[in-house]
Amino acid sequence: MALIPMELSRIVISEINNQQVIFLRETGGRREFPIIIGIFEATSIDRRVKGYDSPRPLTHDLICSAVELLGGVFQDVTIHRLEEQTYFASLRIRRGDELLELDARPSDAVAIAVSVRPMLAILVEEDVLEQAIAQEQPGK
Amino acid sequence: MALIPMELSRIVISEINNQQVIFLRETGGRREFPIIIGIFEATSIDRRVKGYDSPRPLTHDLICSAVELLGGVFQDVTIHRLEEQTYFASLRIRRGDELLELDARPSDAVAIAVSVRPMLAILVEEDVLEQAIAQEQPGK
Repeated sequence: MALIPMELSRIVISEINNQQVIFLRETGGRREFPIIIGIFEATSIDRRVKGYDSPRPLTHDLICSAVELLGGVFQDVTIHRLEEQTYFASLRIRRGDELLELDARPSDAVAIAVSVRPMLAILVEEDVLEQAIAQEQPGK
Repeated sequence: MALIPMELSRIVISEINNQQVIFLRETGGRREFPIIIGIFEATSIDRRVKGYDSPRPLTHDLICSAVELLGGVFQDVTIHRLEEQTYFASLRIRRGDELLELDARPSDAVAIAVSVRPMLAILVEEDVLEQAIAQEQPGK
């Protein structure tokens, strides 16, 4: 199955409820879909995209430094499954010749993708992208 | 310098502001001090202490699974420095013969300490404990 490179195109944060939204859009394309995430993860993504710095490691920084400490290098993020409106992501980690996969929620995976430099590619399985778009346009 | 084993004795969560408090108390003793932490970390600690389960890995779970995936085992948490009212912690990770140290905020370190089974020991440097207590009782 093909993996489609996508980019974080928007973050919509509402202080009123606990459902924040990130939008992923196909790189160089027009297909886009939203993922509902929590306020903590949304804030974490937002501050990294804006380049805010923190004097102490925040929770997502800690994941990055733990992986680095143990000799791993984040390679990319894949979103490879959609089941009952839940997206499943993996963080792929390279260590020497090994390629390891870490099961994650898309919110954490994207927060890490935008934390490391250079930012990680976000790859979405073609069929997940199609399902996601169909789900957003039930009448079409 | 001696490391004093301590336990998480209280979590005080207020929805009104962003300053939540955890209290650490000397195991088998009476010395106790508070650490101010964020609402996300406080909620994360609280749900783990209460044994709430999540169908998908939450952010602190992801740190645990990343370390496990890369062959590390969390050994304990140390709180080894207090500077300008900021506590500095380390998560100590064993991998084979190596003992590695991961710099962390106490909130993340304690969230991980209560996430892994068996829970990790929380060790506070004697001089940090003394400073912490002196700071809480400025008039004494």
